[in-house]
Amino acid sequence: MSDATAAILIIGNEVLSGKVDDTNSPFLIKALRQRGIELVELRVIADVVDSIIDATRALSAATHLFTTGGIGPTHDDMTIEAIAEAFERRVVHHPQLLERLHHRYGEELSPARLKLAEVPDGSLLHVSDESPFMTIQFRNIFILPGVPSLMRSCFALVADDLGGSPIYSRAVYLDVAESDAAAAVAEVQTRHPGVSVGSYPRFDSAPYRVKITVDSRNLDEVLLAVTDLKNSLKIEWMVDIDGG
Amino acid sequence: MSDATAAILIIGNEVLSGKVDDTNSPFLIKALRQRGIELVELRVIADVVDSIIDATRALSAATHLFTTGGIGPTHDDMTIEAIAEAFERRVVHHPQLLERLHHRYGEELSPARLKLAEVPDGSLLHVSDESPFMTIQFRNIFILPGVPSLMRSCFALVADDLGGSPIYSRAVYLDVAESDAAAAVAEVQTRHPGVSVGSYPRFDSAPYRVKITVDSRNLDEVLLAVTDLKNSLKIEWMVDIDGG
Repeated sequence: MSDATAAILIIGNEVLSGKVDDTNSPFLIKALRQRGIELVELRVIADVVDSIIDATRALSAATHLFTTGGIGPTHDDMTIEAIAEAFERRVVHHPQLLERLHHRYGEELSPARLKLAEVPDGSLLHVSDESPFMTIQFRNIFILPGVPSLMRSCFALVADDLGGSPIYSRAVYLDVAESDAAAAVAEVQTRHPGVSVGSYPRFDSAPYRVKITVDSRNLDEVLLAVTDLKNSLKIEWMVDIDGG
Repeated sequence: MSDATAAILIIGNEVLSGKVDDTNSPFLIKALRQRGIELVELRVIADVVDSIIDATRALSAATHLFTTGGIGPTHDDMTIEAIAEAFERRVVHHPQLLERLHHRYGEELSPARLKLAEVPDGSLLHVSDESPFMTIQFRNIFILPGVPSLMRSCFALVADDLGGSPIYSRAVYLDVAESDAAAAVAEVQTRHPGVSVGSYPRFDSAPYRVKITVDSRNLDEVLLAVTDLKNSLKIEWMVDIDGG
């Protein structure tokens, strides 16, 4: 689990149409990074069964897939049905969710509310004595709500079980055109295949014009590559070096 | 072109790793909506050739595909190469881009800088007398830079050519549990297949608990569905109705 990867699937017409700003992605991106889990892809799709099927099949190739949205009681909530269909499972009422709904609504348990107990067959629930929320997991897919406050509460229930190991990162800031440094930076990447070297230009009034980043789960490799970078680049280009 | 759709492909390790907040997606989402272009999918992927190939093939099914990122001079800029490969084209130097680089750099035109003139064979350029930027279009793919200020300038060069027609939207705000309104809302959707009905709950201190939205390119259909919604829901649930 030390090289855990993740994918995020945001399900919601409201994000694609710009009615709602997606705050779930920025939260999850940072939360995964902090835990040393490499995010390999993020998709935002509509509440359409076929789209959800295709995307969950493709993205569940990562160690963990987090979906958000589409698990409410209404006609446009199709996530549970689609994930079940993607993996040829039936939709069933999870006994524990059903019990909670019975406890809460009693005789007022309408068909719409019953939908809140639906899960793909074979799902398990993450619960905690400290939280009123439950998080649905089916295979390696964590099925989270779309409402940001609920999503965060549900993510917190599973965050400690995700594995991951620290990703180390260093940055070198240059005051030179990106194209002038490109050849030397590319050679450093070739000599250090165990690290990931990125080059990010700026075109504003920042005190540097290019940020070169070096990332790896192996700190020694990061430090070796940064040393090589310093030796390969002209000293007068270098503005700053940091751990960011 | 009146039912134009779009997809967005953000290419960049820096977004997936949380080093850079993605401001390009929010900008493009709103810009497309304003122009009446329906966004069908958004993906964020790494600077990996195979990922870019798969994503551009899939997402170019929309009327327009906008990619951002990966078109600089460095080793991690792989977008042009990957898009060419996705459609079995060669990478060539576009004469107009080449001329501009020769004019700008003269004898200092290094291999890294030459990379800035590369396009998939068959690309065309969008230019304007008012702008120093050029925007690369290959088939229905607009290949935009990742740096936000440059991306916006390049988008502006093509924005007027995208087609699209207004999408009308109305919202009804309810002070009731989403599950209580679910059945009536679902019936309205069934009776009005030409509109898209969304239901979005809130769990905070807002003056409403559910927002029901009705969208369509046909304003009459929107208004009819909203009237049906008002008649189908209990009057005491309704907090507000607006054009948002």
